[in-house]
Amino acid sequence: MRHNPQRRTALLDAAIEVLAREGMRGLTLRAVDAEAGVPVGTCSNYFAHRGQLLGQIMSRTRERLTPDPAELADTLTAPRDHHLVARLLRQVHRRMDHDRAGYLAMLELRLEGARRPELGAELNKVLAAELETNIRFHLDTGLPGDRTDVILLHLAVHGMIVDDLTVPAVLDGHAPALIDELTTRLLGRARRATDA
Amino acid sequence: MRHNPQRRTALLDAAIEVLAREGMRGLTLRAVDAEAGVPVGTCSNYFAHRGQLLGQIMSRTRERLTPDPAELADTLTAPRDHHLVARLLRQVHRRMDHDRAGYLAMLELRLEGARRPELGAELNKVLAAELETNIRFHLDTGLPGDRTDVILLHLAVHGMIVDDLTVPAVLDGHAPALIDELTTRLLGRARRATDA
Repeated sequence: MRHNPQRRTALLDAAIEVLAREGMRGLTLRAVDAEAGVPVGTCSNYFAHRGQLLGQIMSRTRERLTPDPAELADTLTAPRDHHLVARLLRQVHRRMDHDRAGYLAMLELRLEGARRPELGAELNKVLAAELETNIRFHLDTGLPGDRTDVILLHLAVHGMIVDDLTVPAVLDGHAPALIDELTTRLLGRARRATDA
Repeated sequence: MRHNPQRRTALLDAAIEVLAREGMRGLTLRAVDAEAGVPVGTCSNYFAHRGQLLGQIMSRTRERLTPDPAELADTLTAPRDHHLVARLLRQVHRRMDHDRAGYLAMLELRLEGARRPELGAELNKVLAAELETNIRFHLDTGLPGDRTDVILLHLAVHGMIVDDLTVPAVLDGHAPALIDELTTRLLGRARRATDA
């Protein structure tokens, strides 16, 4: 079994495309080989079985959504107020917009996880840790709002993303404006109340 | 082609079970016949093709989530404050909890709609109308909050439901408490600010 990290990543990216385009139904090792333009059998050299492939697709979707460190550092030079929270959440939404395939693949994995206990356990662990990381980042950065605010913000943005991916006409491009309203209504008043 | 409404509903409920349990991959007319315990070929008497079946499954999931009119009337005897909004949203969440199959089937349909333009168009239309109905109900009932608040509340609850269905360990049973926090933070303060 070979271990070329770049090829592994290319195969996972190909698997994400297949998953987004054809759903769980279309995801076969052979389809991934074809999508990646590699000889038939390559994928099975890298992933012992479908379950292993699914777990690594999940990790790859998380990797793809990592913010650009330079952009993040630049964003964080702004005052730590609810406008900055809105800007960070709009960036989360924009990363989704730029990686629809990655998010659609993740939704497919979530549904598959509801059926495959092993994948489900992995998803629960990874997404719970991700939420905890988001909470810690928010609080450690000194942004306004408490732990519960961060959870509520992320749930609402998560709901927006699912709608934008699957029924885009419902929010009809208003997600960024809704993020501004949400942070102002949730954190703007709270902050004023605290300051008063 | 026969048109027995009860049998049609039974077939759609069977299709929802198949979809929730096996995903889009497992949804064949034959699998629905087996799930419903009817002779092979019954389903194809009722639904001309897969696309028609999918559209009617969607309508059936909406029907199953309709609140019980007596429960709703009873709930609405309470004062029109943010506690009542929380109670109504907790009821939405509880209906999901009692109909996991219906919600999982709807998520499968949303993903399939991202791939099938005809189904996607239908989903966009139905879910946009549903949001509009929710907004009108909220405003006409005299509940606190404006149009944007209603949209934000529904997006957050939608995010909770997707998490509870697919990664239940993340919110770990806290969704009802989070709904209380959300309505208090979004509408409780707003109302106090208006009253002040």
